[in-house]
Amino acid sequence: MLLLAFEDEAALAHELAEALGLSLAFITRHRFPDGELRLVLPKPLPERVLLLRGLQQPNEKLVELLITAPAAREYGARQLLLVAPYLAYMRQDMEFTPGEAVSQRHIARLLAAHFDHVLTVDPHLHRIASLDEVMPPGTGLALSAAPVLGEWIAAQVPGALLIGPDEESAQWVSEAARAGGLDHAVGRKVRHGDHQVVLALPEVDVQGRAVVLLDDMASTGRTLIGSAQELLARGAASVDVAVTHALFNGDALPALQAAGVRHVWSSNAVPHESNAVSVVPLLAKALKPLMA
Amino acid sequence: MLLLAFEDEAALAHELAEALGLSLAFITRHRFPDGELRLVLPKPLPERVLLLRGLQQPNEKLVELLITAPAAREYGARQLLLVAPYLAYMRQDMEFTPGEAVSQRHIARLLAAHFDHVLTVDPHLHRIASLDEVMPPGTGLALSAAPVLGEWIAAQVPGALLIGPDEESAQWVSEAARAGGLDHAVGRKVRHGDHQVVLALPEVDVQGRAVVLLDDMASTGRTLIGSAQELLARGAASVDVAVTHALFNGDALPALQAAGVRHVWSSNAVPHESNAVSVVPLLAKALKPLMA
Repeated sequence: MLLLAFEDEAALAHELAEALGLSLAFITRHRFPDGELRLVLPKPLPERVLLLRGLQQPNEKLVELLITAPAAREYGARQLLLVAPYLAYMRQDMEFTPGEAVSQRHIARLLAAHFDHVLTVDPHLHRIASLDEVMPPGTGLALSAAPVLGEWIAAQVPGALLIGPDEESAQWVSEAARAGGLDHAVGRKVRHGDHQVVLALPEVDVQGRAVVLLDDMASTGRTLIGSAQELLARGAASVDVAVTHALFNGDALPALQAAGVRHVWSSNAVPHESNAVSVVPLLAKALKPLMA
Repeated sequence: MLLLAFEDEAALAHELAEALGLSLAFITRHRFPDGELRLVLPKPLPERVLLLRGLQQPNEKLVELLITAPAAREYGARQLLLVAPYLAYMRQDMEFTPGEAVSQRHIARLLAAHFDHVLTVDPHLHRIASLDEVMPPGTGLALSAAPVLGEWIAAQVPGALLIGPDEESAQWVSEAARAGGLDHAVGRKVRHGDHQVVLALPEVDVQGRAVVLLDDMASTGRTLIGSAQELLARGAASVDVAVTHALFNGDALPALQAAGVRHVWSSNAVPHESNAVSVVPLLAKALKPLMA
């Protein structure tokens, strides 16, 4: 078995290769001025190939995968396993307005058509319980970074109060709280129109508490910023943020700091300066039985 | 039958809808800060849908298509016909270096898996003779803009000498010459290494001649620029450029003008300020039997 990866995820790739005791090779990638990608794979490939590719800023990377997968099979791979620490398009999981494409389903099926297994971390499944609902059963495997985040937080901020965004995240936040031996509470999402969402924080006493806002991902960070400001206004001693997926688009990170957030921590599922905990032990543990 | 299109190709879409006597509807498209696309289709859709999408700067548009096609089928379409006036990834048609992905084949198969028919113009097939070699036979249909370009040139530059880039384009250039009643000649591509290509112009007397450089596409324009300079140095009275696909990435257009090129003409297969001739009559003629 060989681990294939791209240079922009080299650190994660080396860590994963070491944890699994696998050889690592990189796919060479060039983008022409007309936007087309040129991909060169090592050749020949062994029968079983593990491909590492996180899908943050997903479109070009999806095309990469859709070219890489059939090329890998032509060059010898018979079983292809995708490790996508961040899986994109998982939030568009219903027709919010009539005619809206339910991309979650279409992208999931596309990946399942090209890979024998798809392994990911915290894929933001809200209205569905498991990847089995959008991929052939057994194809998709979702791991949770909640316990490692909970343990990290407990070590950094003993006695922290974890606050999650909404009821949908309640189970996930409680996993983190249990792993760290911490208190937790969850808020409630209030929708204004199709896409604007405001967070209503839980009615818990935060006076003098060290609060850590916990979420599976942060993109623009707007919801976290509003929550942090409100918590500080309500008397919280400190507000930190911990997320699995540090997308942090645009000025999200400086804006969080400007809003009074003390620390921002993330897992290395998405490579980012805020990375504090590794998902590699988690991935390795799940991959070992699949490698047998 | 309904024609579906995207707003950035509205002019071409209106012209095509009118030529075919079809209703036209647009897909609403939004890109979130995390790079994901939100697509909203008109709903319900009729049984037969024609989707217009040129694939210049292709990656994000390919993802659009891979979401749009299954969504269109969910919303009522049973037959999906893609009109891609420019079809991307057709140049990577062999393993130039060991392990290089032959994207032509992979992208062609992906489109064929999502659409019942794929109609395009001048898809730059060099080492293969027809789209039937990379799609299930009868799925892909390639039209030639050579005759309309030849007629346009003959009307603008009576007695022009058409020069095509290489032997592979010889038949295509001769079609244009025949349609315009013009002389023609073709050069020869000289490869330096894997990807650097220099054009050797044909040994014809260009002294005092109005030369038109003809090609199926222009991207950076570097080959055309070198050729134009050499033709003017050899005494050509004027050098114009005509291409089917005006990709013209970066500063290609001003650089061509700076090199002494008088006119740059293109078909509207790719919307661009240089568009001079329309591929719509061509597309409409080919589509009518498919609509019957």
